[in-house]
Amino acid sequence: MARTDTALPDLVAAARTGDRRATARLLTIVENDTADAPALAGLVKGGDAQIVGITGSPGVGKSTLVSALITAWRGQGLRVGVLAVDPSSPFTGGAILGDRVRMADHALDPGVYIRSVATRGHLGGLAATTTAGVRLLEGLGFDAVVVETVGVGQAEVEIASLADTTLLLLAPGMGDGIQAVKAGVVEIADVYVVNKADRPGADGTVRDLKAMMSLVRREPGEWRQPVCTTVASETKGIDDLVAAIGKHRDWLAEGDRLAAKRRQRAAAEIRARVDAELKRRYRVPDALAAAVADGETDVASAARSVLGDTG
Amino acid sequence: MARTDTALPDLVAAARTGDRRATARLLTIVENDTADAPALAGLVKGGDAQIVGITGSPGVGKSTLVSALITAWRGQGLRVGVLAVDPSSPFTGGAILGDRVRMADHALDPGVYIRSVATRGHLGGLAATTTAGVRLLEGLGFDAVVVETVGVGQAEVEIASLADTTLLLLAPGMGDGIQAVKAGVVEIADVYVVNKADRPGADGTVRDLKAMMSLVRREPGEWRQPVCTTVASETKGIDDLVAAIGKHRDWLAEGDRLAAKRRQRAAAEIRARVDAELKRRYRVPDALAAAVADGETDVASAARSVLGDTG
Repeated sequence: MARTDTALPDLVAAARTGDRRATARLLTIVENDTADAPALAGLVKGGDAQIVGITGSPGVGKSTLVSALITAWRGQGLRVGVLAVDPSSPFTGGAILGDRVRMADHALDPGVYIRSVATRGHLGGLAATTTAGVRLLEGLGFDAVVVETVGVGQAEVEIASLADTTLLLLAPGMGDGIQAVKAGVVEIADVYVVNKADRPGADGTVRDLKAMMSLVRREPGEWRQPVCTTVASETKGIDDLVAAIGKHRDWLAEGDRLAAKRRQRAAAEIRARVDAELKRRYRVPDALAAAVADGETDVASAARSVLGDTG
Repeated sequence: MARTDTALPDLVAAARTGDRRATARLLTIVENDTADAPALAGLVKGGDAQIVGITGSPGVGKSTLVSALITAWRGQGLRVGVLAVDPSSPFTGGAILGDRVRMADHALDPGVYIRSVATRGHLGGLAATTTAGVRLLEGLGFDAVVVETVGVGQAEVEIASLADTTLLLLAPGMGDGIQAVKAGVVEIADVYVVNKADRPGADGTVRDLKAMMSLVRREPGEWRQPVCTTVASETKGIDDLVAAIGKHRDWLAEGDRLAAKRRQRAAAEIRARVDAELKRRYRVPDALAAAVADGETDVASAARSVLGDTG
């Protein structure tokens, strides 16, 4: 706080060399959309990171897998950023770091930056905050940016699907495959990963996934999701997974695919900002909610009144 | 489709007597916000249902538990409605019914109505569609309305928390408790249920939950979440759970609590409608998204342009 006098270009330069405090301060500017944000947007743009989204049910080992991926990418000399999306929690007043602790392996490596995105923030939602963070990290020269979402739900799926390549993690047992179909996650995944593949039932999970895949009709040239198996805790299968991610990146690079993804991400980012501002402009008065709850007016009329429409 | 000429009051009367087709048609009117919706809102209002939200990770046995709850409530002579929230799936073009099949037990009982809410629909989101459906079922005289959400995520939590009483289901193992804390679900639950309580690790899960609870400081008179244990597939523990839900309802009935919940639900419903309409009015042009993706303009300027602001 006392150092906000540091000039923005200096902070950017420091962040580019791997200064983690500088990166953290820039991310805070972006997340809070402070007065420095427009100037920062002018200073940091472009970049060519591979954006990887990772989602999956609780307990499948997402953080352990991310840690293993970081190690693999670092071995290739890539700079890696991770945004771990934890919903804001009124219970704790912020992110619960939980197994972020496992990331401690990378705590001293200046080529790695890990942050929990915990607040909906000024930008009006986790998706907006996260996308803005991804944009910044990419602009700062990170080669790979991982977005890890906690849980399987609509919001998490939306966030993960803004990545270039989205990984869906499953673990043997629990009927996870079927559950993932139900949660609508299967459609947005580019690569399936069956983690904890040394556990009983792993073969069955792989078989189920492949059977499900075989039901999907694909046009020639369309991406066919591979099913990777890993034991992330022992870094088994990670090289193959890295290769699969790279293959998807290559596929994206053909034609207009990657550019289309980027436009889609930009559209989502603009949308989220617009929505946040509109929420501020069009508030629902308490008295109106009470009138609807008491049956004095109906929801549609109440909505028209908020919109200032005369109906 | 051929029978849309049936007069609305007749449909409502039929639905009140347990005619499932009539109920289905009225729900469709509400979900699609058709021309009949305002008249329907005038015909069906009020009611005094207990709205119960059920959420939890995939595989913990939500549908089985709902089925057991239905049986228990039916034994008390209550009419029960269930809205099972499945995200809309481009993969299948609609709801994946999955273990809705388990609900087949109740398929011939006119005192039970079960529906999958699969589309964001005209109302602009699953939360809006679901809340409108709950309002209709309550108005039609259902005594208990269950909202079951698939998965644990922000959207699911938001939907479940619109209920009067929200159940969080956990299963032994998988570190589900910690994961639930991370997903921010714990704060919104009124009753914890450890299902599959005959499995190894159940005692530990209960212990963990109770330990977590003991860390929360509560004012006198505040609700203390009970931890129920069930084996839903064998209907074990269901009576105690039904009692716990009833106890929470009694607690809510004191003072302004229940009314406050209803106002909160009404506010969310109005909000969702307003947001949907604003999304229609303020669109993000493709060219603008492309300009942001190409770095020609920044997100904040693009958002201002969509809003029609001159900056």
